[in-house]
Amino acid sequence: MTSFKLTDELLARIAQLIENQKDSALVSLLEEVHYADVAEIANELKVDEATYLIKLLDSDKTSDVLTELDEDVREAILSNLSTKEIAEELEELDTDDAADIIAELPDEIVQEVISEIEDKEHAKDIVDLLRYDEDSAGGLMAKELVKVKENWNVLTCVKEMRSQAENVTRVHSIYVVDDEEKLIGRLSLKDLLTTSTTSPIRDVYIPKVDSVNVNEDPEEVAKIMSKYDLEAIPVVDEIGRLVGRITIDDIVDVIKEEADKDYQLAAGISQDVEADDSVWELTRARLPWLILGLFGGLGAAAIMGGFEEMISKHAILFFFTPLIAAMAGNVGVQSSAIIVQGLANDDLKGSVGNRLIKEMLLALLNGLILAAILLLFTWFWKGDFLTALAISISLIAVIIVAGFIGTFTPLFLDKRGIDPAIATGPFITTSNDIFGILIYFWIAKLVLGI
Amino acid sequence: MTSFKLTDELLARIAQLIENQKDSALVSLLEEVHYADVAEIANELKVDEATYLIKLLDSDKTSDVLTELDEDVREAILSNLSTKEIAEELEELDTDDAADIIAELPDEIVQEVISEIEDKEHAKDIVDLLRYDEDSAGGLMAKELVKVKENWNVLTCVKEMRSQAENVTRVHSIYVVDDEEKLIGRLSLKDLLTTSTTSPIRDVYIPKVDSVNVNEDPEEVAKIMSKYDLEAIPVVDEIGRLVGRITIDDIVDVIKEEADKDYQLAAGISQDVEADDSVWELTRARLPWLILGLFGGLGAAAIMGGFEEMISKHAILFFFTPLIAAMAGNVGVQSSAIIVQGLANDDLKGSVGNRLIKEMLLALLNGLILAAILLLFTWFWKGDFLTALAISISLIAVIIVAGFIGTFTPLFLDKRGIDPAIATGPFITTSNDIFGILIYFWIAKLVLGI
Repeated sequence: MTSFKLTDELLARIAQLIENQKDSALVSLLEEVHYADVAEIANELKVDEATYLIKLLDSDKTSDVLTELDEDVREAILSNLSTKEIAEELEELDTDDAADIIAELPDEIVQEVISEIEDKEHAKDIVDLLRYDEDSAGGLMAKELVKVKENWNVLTCVKEMRSQAENVTRVHSIYVVDDEEKLIGRLSLKDLLTTSTTSPIRDVYIPKVDSVNVNEDPEEVAKIMSKYDLEAIPVVDEIGRLVGRITIDDIVDVIKEEADKDYQLAAGISQDVEADDSVWELTRARLPWLILGLFGGLGAAAIMGGFEEMISKHAILFFFTPLIAAMAGNVGVQSSAIIVQGLANDDLKGSVGNRLIKEMLLALLNGLILAAILLLFTWFWKGDFLTALAISISLIAVIIVAGFIGTFTPLFLDKRGIDPAIATGPFITTSNDIFGILIYFWIAKLVLGI
Repeated sequence: MTSFKLTDELLARIAQLIENQKDSALVSLLEEVHYADVAEIANELKVDEATYLIKLLDSDKTSDVLTELDEDVREAILSNLSTKEIAEELEELDTDDAADIIAELPDEIVQEVISEIEDKEHAKDIVDLLRYDEDSAGGLMAKELVKVKENWNVLTCVKEMRSQAENVTRVHSIYVVDDEEKLIGRLSLKDLLTTSTTSPIRDVYIPKVDSVNVNEDPEEVAKIMSKYDLEAIPVVDEIGRLVGRITIDDIVDVIKEEADKDYQLAAGISQDVEADDSVWELTRARLPWLILGLFGGLGAAAIMGGFEEMISKHAILFFFTPLIAAMAGNVGVQSSAIIVQGLANDDLKGSVGNRLIKEMLLALLNGLILAAILLLFTWFWKGDFLTALAISISLIAVIIVAGFIGTFTPLFLDKRGIDPAIATGPFITTSNDIFGILIYFWIAKLVLGI
């Protein structure tokens, strides 16, 4: 049943209907289509075609469509709507989505748009949310929730819930607050369904309720909700008052964005880009780390130039520099990936010192195995045992140092409050290349007695 | 309120209490502790201590604790329980979690454990679930759900729901089926709360309901639930009969595991390991790709050896091989990461051909900028313009080829049904190293007329 597929034919047909302004045909075609799918369609249309669609369809559908659009498409469409039209969309949205959209609008029109929102309570809630840092629980939460006071009787409760629940898309728990709006417990819908409703709230509610502080880091919220299998979590301010609620669908988005960001960092892409972004945007995101890599390579070249006198008698050493650099890079990337993931999943136990020792042992073991393979091949290929030995010993040393750097750097950054995911990818490979080549030639010099 | 922190003191205290068999102290200490936190504690205890705890606490708590344990800890604890004790735990679990645990048990005892489950309906449901492929919607789903028949009157409905909902931890929607158990619609709890209950089901339910097929890929299910902001999705078999339900908490786990797996693949780690695994397990996961990298390096060394005659007059070329190899690797990793992410998020539109052309343009642009920087530095450093030019032109060519390989390979794998995430990390860097060095010397030879 969930089988919406955006085919080229469908897209062409919709574009055609828009061009010929066949409004009723469009409305009936898209009537049963989920807003996320309408957003997919709008992402593919030209901006003016998408704007036409947004203006044509009802606000209660198009508002959700707007939240699902790619950011640049949304920006383009909003710039084609009047402040009144934008306000109408915001009217239909949950406060968290409305706040997100307002945050994207140009400053000059924000005041006007807000003033055009007819539901003043709704406007007030949105404005409250705008105060919070985007990158916090407050920035994620919505004001829509169902709450009851502990000193109410059940009849008042049920009536209250019926009217509050009108605006709340998903009711998971009904939150219980005291007279000062402080969160003190919860009631589940299931309880209501399966318990007789003649008891006073005070006797029925569960006084234990998980919550997060309004200043909490979104990744922390995601960890908590994932760990305790929660679908929604209330948000409280510094005094403990219930100020909002975060639902699992927003957290799923946080988890995916975080994973995408870490993955891109590990590949040396410095900002959030997609495959379909323009060549210019992609260049801006990719070039910085490439330039870093370039300078790393220049550094390596300079180091090798410093050992130039070895070339005539020991040319073979230079043939193995890519191998040494590559192994240093690979080991470093592996080590840092495991640490970064461990930090993200809160899986790391034990002291940093122990971890480094473990990594060195691991590197030693792997290094010995790899060096043995290398020794055999090199000796076989060139026949000079001492040189093969020099290269193999260097490999072990390089691997140990690379493993150390790869393990230590993200831990170090994390302790300093810097995102450890930066210490992956090109950062690690470039620094390990330089260290690796330095160590390599130094050891080769030692072993070969030059 | 959600501030459980596993301190060393707490852990030591619990271990102490276990050693002295202070049962009532342990029970009261852990009474209010969430099962996910108890699991965190158990992960840190010695196996016999953890087993003691599991046997001591009530099954309705320890069953959930078991599902949250690290896999190897769970395996160790289960091996210390009798089949009757295991069956008692399974009795308390939702069918999907019970099936997962049975799947982990040694084959010899599965039959016995199942026979010891007292609730025969529960046992039947678990056995049904065991038939499905682990890596499918059927393998993810649970049998616990609330369903009503369309031809029931409302009174029967409400009574039925009250009794069914006893076993269901989270009720999102009540599913409506026809006489043949085929899924035809749903009712939301919110509707029940806000609508009068005197209407017949047939008039009240929503005939539109998203569902997935029992054979669907878990990543596809995750995409659907994330796209449509669903918290639970019913699962139907090939005939359309309602056979189970997948809840968002399981999907959150799927998303995180998938992200972790892709991240590790990109770092050249071949199986699911954590930072705290043994040195041996980590070696097994990391060594394969390292060996691949080693052979790649040997290949590069052999290629360079083939150009040995250039060394005396053009030693500088060999100083730049790590730079060329590193740039090839970096560009390749960036390109493949963007494609792999695009494939995972279903963000890729347009033909493969167009994408490759776009990547080449991007590579050309980036290559020109980087080559210009390189040219200036090299010329400045060594004063030989022609050599600097040769190296810079090679860099452009290498970057274009690396970008091509990095873009093409994951697309190619994906079209063949192979996980494109394999074409990241060491796979890309190693192959790009070899191609890069080959192209480099070949172009250098051309430009310098050797």
